[in-house]
Amino acid sequence: MLTSSAAGVYVICPTPFEGDGRVDVASTDRMVEAYLKAGATGLTILGIMGEAPKLAADEALAFARQVIKTVAGRVPVIVGVSAAGFAAMSGLSSRVMDAGAAGVMIAPPSTLKTDDQIVSYYADAVEAIGTEVPWVIQDYPLTTNVVMTPKVIMRIIEQSPSCVMLKHEDWPGLDKITALRRASDAGQVRRVSILCGNGGMFLPFEMERGADGAMTGYAYPEMLVGVVNLINQGKRTEAHDLFDRHLPLVRYETQPGVGLAVRKYVLKRRGIIATDTLRKPGPKLSPETIADIEWLMERIERS
Amino acid sequence: MLTSSAAGVYVICPTPFEGDGRVDVASTDRMVEAYLKAGATGLTILGIMGEAPKLAADEALAFARQVIKTVAGRVPVIVGVSAAGFAAMSGLSSRVMDAGAAGVMIAPPSTLKTDDQIVSYYADAVEAIGTEVPWVIQDYPLTTNVVMTPKVIMRIIEQSPSCVMLKHEDWPGLDKITALRRASDAGQVRRVSILCGNGGMFLPFEMERGADGAMTGYAYPEMLVGVVNLINQGKRTEAHDLFDRHLPLVRYETQPGVGLAVRKYVLKRRGIIATDTLRKPGPKLSPETIADIEWLMERIERS
Amino acid sequence: MLTSSAAGVYVICPTPFEGDGRVDVASTDRMVEAYLKAGATGLTILGIMGEAPKLAADEALAFARQVIKTVAGRVPVIVGVSAAGFAAMSGLSSRVMDAGAAGVMIAPPSTLKTDDQIVSYYADAVEAIGTEVPWVIQDYPLTTNVVMTPKVIMRIIEQSPSCVMLKHEDWPGLDKITALRRASDAGQVRRVSILCGNGGMFLPFEMERGADGAMTGYAYPEMLVGVVNLINQGKRTEAHDLFDRHLPLVRYETQPGVGLAVRKYVLKRRGIIATDTLRKPGPKLSPETIADIEWLMERIERS
Amino acid sequence: MLTSSAAGVYVICPTPFEGDGRVDVASTDRMVEAYLKAGATGLTILGIMGEAPKLAADEALAFARQVIKTVAGRVPVIVGVSAAGFAAMSGLSSRVMDAGAAGVMIAPPSTLKTDDQIVSYYADAVEAIGTEVPWVIQDYPLTTNVVMTPKVIMRIIEQSPSCVMLKHEDWPGLDKITALRRASDAGQVRRVSILCGNGGMFLPFEMERGADGAMTGYAYPEMLVGVVNLINQGKRTEAHDLFDRHLPLVRYETQPGVGLAVRKYVLKRRGIIATDTLRKPGPKLSPETIADIEWLMERIERS
Repeated sequence: MLTSSAAGVYVICPTPFEGDGRVDVASTDRMVEAYLKAGATGLTILGIMGEAPKLAADEALAFARQVIKTVAGRVPVIVGVSAAGFAAMSGLSSRVMDAGAAGVMIAPPSTLKTDDQIVSYYADAVEAIGTEVPWVIQDYPLTTNVVMTPKVIMRIIEQSPSCVMLKHEDWPGLDKITALRRASDAGQVRRVSILCGNGGMFLPFEMERGADGAMTGYAYPEMLVGVVNLINQGKRTEAHDLFDRHLPLVRYETQPGVGLAVRKYVLKRRGIIATDTLRKPGPKLSPETIADIEWLMERIERS
Repeated sequence: MLTSSAAGVYVICPTPFEGDGRVDVASTDRMVEAYLKAGATGLTILGIMGEAPKLAADEALAFARQVIKTVAGRVPVIVGVSAAGFAAMSGLSSRVMDAGAAGVMIAPPSTLKTDDQIVSYYADAVEAIGTEVPWVIQDYPLTTNVVMTPKVIMRIIEQSPSCVMLKHEDWPGLDKITALRRASDAGQVRRVSILCGNGGMFLPFEMERGADGAMTGYAYPEMLVGVVNLINQGKRTEAHDLFDRHLPLVRYETQPGVGLAVRKYVLKRRGIIATDTLRKPGPKLSPETIADIEWLMERIERS
Repeated sequence: MLTSSAAGVYVICPTPFEGDGRVDVASTDRMVEAYLKAGATGLTILGIMGEAPKLAADEALAFARQVIKTVAGRVPVIVGVSAAGFAAMSGLSSRVMDAGAAGVMIAPPSTLKTDDQIVSYYADAVEAIGTEVPWVIQDYPLTTNVVMTPKVIMRIIEQSPSCVMLKHEDWPGLDKITALRRASDAGQVRRVSILCGNGGMFLPFEMERGADGAMTGYAYPEMLVGVVNLINQGKRTEAHDLFDRHLPLVRYETQPGVGLAVRKYVLKRRGIIATDTLRKPGPKLSPETIADIEWLMERIERS
Repeated sequence: MLTSSAAGVYVICPTPFEGDGRVDVASTDRMVEAYLKAGATGLTILGIMGEAPKLAADEALAFARQVIKTVAGRVPVIVGVSAAGFAAMSGLSSRVMDAGAAGVMIAPPSTLKTDDQIVSYYADAVEAIGTEVPWVIQDYPLTTNVVMTPKVIMRIIEQSPSCVMLKHEDWPGLDKITALRRASDAGQVRRVSILCGNGGMFLPFEMERGADGAMTGYAYPEMLVGVVNLINQGKRTEAHDLFDRHLPLVRYETQPGVGLAVRKYVLKRRGIIATDTLRKPGPKLSPETIADIEWLMERIERS
């Protein structure tokens, strides 16, 4: 079960598809092994970059079961259960927890406006999934359009003892990490794990502000693992050097909309998944974009 | 099967719940009979005011089957199949069509921005449900935040022969009806049925601009039927007199968020459904609001 | 100077233009006299429905001076000073206060997201206009996209002793009035004047919840005055009867975008302003819309 | 006068303030000289990163005159004239053109939704500034929330012969450049200059897609100049090497909201402006953020 001491790199998994759009089980297994070999301390599936809303309920459940079975307890698996309604959220959550998931992740719906609406939404969500299920707040305003202040996050943590982690991907967000860590150090709020998303764009700085690691899906996850380890060892320059070598591709992969297609293309080129198929609606890479990616990969792999 | 000559009043059905949140089958049946008795020429279920996103996939399907069974072919039943992804949309659509639905309704996701994105989304949606399923464009920018010009609607109609109806609820929208009717009269676009939503707030004027009727869920649907019939009979003054008597409650019921709770309260007070329960997240009526509604009902029923 | 005991009807004034778009001074004077004759207890200028952002800085100031001069102290004049920046807000505010305005009104910019951002914006705004200038919070989420809870409004009132009024036009908003009045009755917050906008759509109910009057620009302001007076006299049925007679046109005038054009058309037809010109960008009334308005005016004036 | 053959680097200038918020004339002059020395082929003032909406009308005009006077014809100066209304836009535009500006830049207001609304807005804007004034489309959806397809941009170019440049900062935007260049190569649309903003995050790739240069305000503009020149000389590897050395700071400076404060801090540290003051509302740099910036500057300057 996921706890608030979770750390390291939880790789965000895409959902691999065959050319015709069916979930690709063989690629799923290969991807899991590749991520574990890269040093993942956890996996997160069915998030925004997992094309979760594009899967039917039974497909989502089958994919989650497949990943959990392949992982076979080697690391915790977090499952995204964000949904338009609590009935769907509750159903998926209880089924994946039964299947062996370590916890679930919940992003707020874009209709929430005020501080109180956000806090109250999460109270209802916890009621829906049950208070015994460890869960993760996803704070990703660029996509959700919901802005949570440190104060709001602290209210959510305080009202729900089963909240064990913040997936932090606000932008800008470094001072938010500092504020949350200062508050837990001062005993004003329970300390939860903070893993950082946002494509990893600020990872070394986020670690230095007090994050416990990364939760993102950059197509060379070994870099994320390396940076987290180097920072933890106090090797600041080496951490930034490693990170900066990858930043050109990180930056390219972080483009909204097309970013997931870029990521899947690199994973395909690295032999991790069989195709870079996205379900509709989704962008197709242009020949020019593919040439850009090849250039970036070559520069990384050469260095 | 739904056709582009559909007309009259398609009542938007709420989903009746018991006090504990389960779908209330007895109230569902009673509601169907009440709406048919009020003169409905069709029913629409699982729309925004049907709390569709709050139902699990199996609940939605069971509710649709129940309504279709109770209607027993007396009028067409349209089922809302809007979903965050095409897999869920396709699954629900094929199942309800198998169960006897007359057609489906699709609202655009709030992420769509440009004209081309909207047109392309509907092309993908039609591919997902299959080109043989009659379907309805839902044009409700106040809720979806997607603005479709007449030109965009015409492109959608032209690209999809199975599109047979526009659920019109833009605000303001009267000149849009005029533009669409002028275009179909001039042979620039195929004529589809236009039924109007938006709580009915502009119904008599919408009819005069060329709409074929209403698709909304005002808690006294017999008023909607009466207005449509009077306008069709050329009795303009009588139509507006009837409508204006109800306008104070129509206006009260059209408040965003709380409106559905108002509507369910009136339906409960009229003996049509057993409780006014909404699933979370949803507002609760204050005593002051209930007093307002009682005042409005009394003034309508007295007049 | 505006105080928190302001009550009655503050009519929102449009800015009258000549056919070529210049500000129409003669119509301005005639409009002021017409509104005072209708029973206005105050006037509000340069609001959203005053096309304020379409005026150059010197035009706005000249218009404000003209209105204040014509009013000549008979009633208080509130001037909208909402601006994209505090320098412009401060400049306009100090100039209109020097010219004899009773107070200013400030709407929040649509970029504000969190509770704290809203509260902090108003702290900065008060610093910009000076703490001695009486001012009005404009709470109009349909247009500003900023949602203020009662708690946020109370924080703003508490932090700024010069805040004397809430222009209330949330939708739904009745329970918000109740919450604010309950809080001031219980001594939890200073009591400020609440005048209601939103085109007047809920005026009698708003008065019953504790509002002090209306601040809106319905083209028959004598109706607003009548409703406020009847409610204050305890004549509930008469108040609603009067209001409901006008509701069909109120509803038509409250359409976003085209509403101001409707209002100016009616004011022109009533001989109050010379033309119904709007500055660009702005809608033009179609012949069908003009026919609708004529029908509605005839029904009101006949009744 | 600005023409469609403009190329190179047009540096986006911040507006330097003294500690008390007044415009800092001495820093303005020093900044102009520093940018010209760095190789700027043009300057752009009063854009979003110039805090334009925070200046009063007379301040904006005085600042523009100061910059134009100091530049003294050495390079073209573009002035941002985006405004909430056309009267203000027209007034500022004619005054700065009289003062010697080479052209103006116009961003769309966030209220625009449909393709036609965008095209029509720019038609009205051109009418407001006059058809003889060369002007730039600013396409920056991350901030404006307005998405313009290539088709829409081409319609705007075609309807306005005085439109000579696109400030391109869509995200993702590379394929948009490719589409526009393909269309002008094929004679489907007039060729205009494309300069790229977005903090410069994708500059070398943008150049390779057919952009003519950069228009952004990165605090080491000599890097932008170097990259543009190297790409133009066909030195791809050298261009990317130079760019990638700066990317860590470019990435840090591109954070929304806080980014301008970062930029001003670096400019202050480089001795270009005297203070890093922002006008309210604006963020203040935390000590941790300042330490991050110092680290990044040291790594750049050492390399």
